Amino acid sequence: MKIGIIGSGIVGQTLGSALADRGEDVALGTRSPDRLGDKRGWGKSLDDWLRGVEHRARIVSFPDAAAHGEVVINATPGTVSLEALALCGTGNLRGKILIDVANPLDFSAGMPPVLTVSNRDSLGEQIQRAFPDVKVVKALNTVTAQLMVNPAQVAGGEHDLFICGDDERARKEVAQLLEQWFGWRNVIDLGDITNARGTEMLLPLWVRLYSMLGTPMFNFRVVR
Amino acid sequence: MKIGIIGSGIVGQTLGSALADRGEDVALGTRSPDRLGDKRGWGKSLDDWLRGVEHRARIVSFPDAAAHGEVVINATPGTVSLEALALCGTGNLRGKILIDVANPLDFSAGMPPVLTVSNRDSLGEQIQRAFPDVKVVKALNTVTAQLMVNPAQVAGGEHDLFICGDDERARKEVAQLLEQWFGWRNVIDLGDITNARGTEMLLPLWVRLYSMLGTPMFNFRVVR
Repeated sequence: MKIGIIGSGIVGQTLGSALADRGEDVALGTRSPDRLGDKRGWGKSLDDWLRGVEHRARIVSFPDAAAHGEVVINATPGTVSLEALALCGTGNLRGKILIDVANPLDFSAGMPPVLTVSNRDSLGEQIQRAFPDVKVVKALNTVTAQLMVNPAQVAGGEHDLFICGDDERARKEVAQLLEQWFGWRNVIDLGDITNARGTEMLLPLWVRLYSMLGTPMFNFRVVR
Repeated sequence: MKIGIIGSGIVGQTLGSALADRGEDVALGTRSPDRLGDKRGWGKSLDDWLRGVEHRARIVSFPDAAAHGEVVINATPGTVSLEALALCGTGNLRGKILIDVANPLDFSAGMPPVLTVSNRDSLGEQIQRAFPDVKVVKALNTVTAQLMVNPAQVAGGEHDLFICGDDERARKEVAQLLEQWFGWRNVIDLGDITNARGTEMLLPLWVRLYSMLGTPMFNFRVVR
């Protein structure tokens, strides 16, 4: 499958590597495809990343990544997602599923971080409103990048992933893709995109648990 | 132990019954101790409640409940907690542990509910600031009333309770009380009261899961 990833930091790199490793046709989109030697946030340089995936993926611009994807993944920091997606070009996204894995977390004032949008709105909703012809499915934003692509690393995968979005068929397709790609067996479909409020507002607790546990390799299980 | 409960709706009634049943000396505080026949929100009338606990507890005013308690529990709706606690009288609360189980949820505009305070502040912090001489410990706000008092009803109790508060000894004491009173074995101490932001912001997801699952008898487990 042709997959366009918007964002080349640790999240985009981790998703891109995992998808390229399983033979998907990945275009990793970056704002600066001419600066492959620069280290990317908590990720590697894109030169190193390309070596890591043995050049079975391409590094391209945001618009080219969006145009390439049959499915597009927003892996940018939530604080810049709307701007980054605007750079992709509306026409390159139209009609497609956009898996939004971003969180609108602002760490600039230290801990605890704050959400730049929350409660009465969410980043998922903002993206859906800005791109009404795109099928936004919020997913994977409640787990760390390494766990997104391999849930079995924690408790054999016996924990839950929350997804939501306004298009029911798109949600079902994303749930299937996440199982095929990464082995997610426990996906809880919350319904429409307003539920992104709930999953994004889980992040302050998540960040605190990360700090307490000393590892991001954990997740929530809904126990009945 | 002498326990004062502020709030006589379903949460206060459920906590009060469970504590009276185990022989604790409970004073259930209500704004209207002269109207014992009125039905209380999702709870019973206080006449019925007194019959249910076989009169092993008392119904009193807010100030009398606060004065009675060695430990005080805030079981009012979060939208009126500050007002209700002010009615208790600062002197009746001074130096005591206040277990705050309330959530600042506003359902007045329909679903999904919104939080009246969130992200950069929380109800737990507001209460701590309003009553600086009280040891506020946020606890039990992430589970339904019936589960607060009997965690073993779900998955044998194999799920987690989050607590936080600025006073470390008070947090430890509350964790011990919750185990003694109700059998809570898995208490995650998040640290200072700013962590109430995270546990209160869990509620929008909790409310959605309640609606989806058709039961409030569930909880979260942090899986590593």
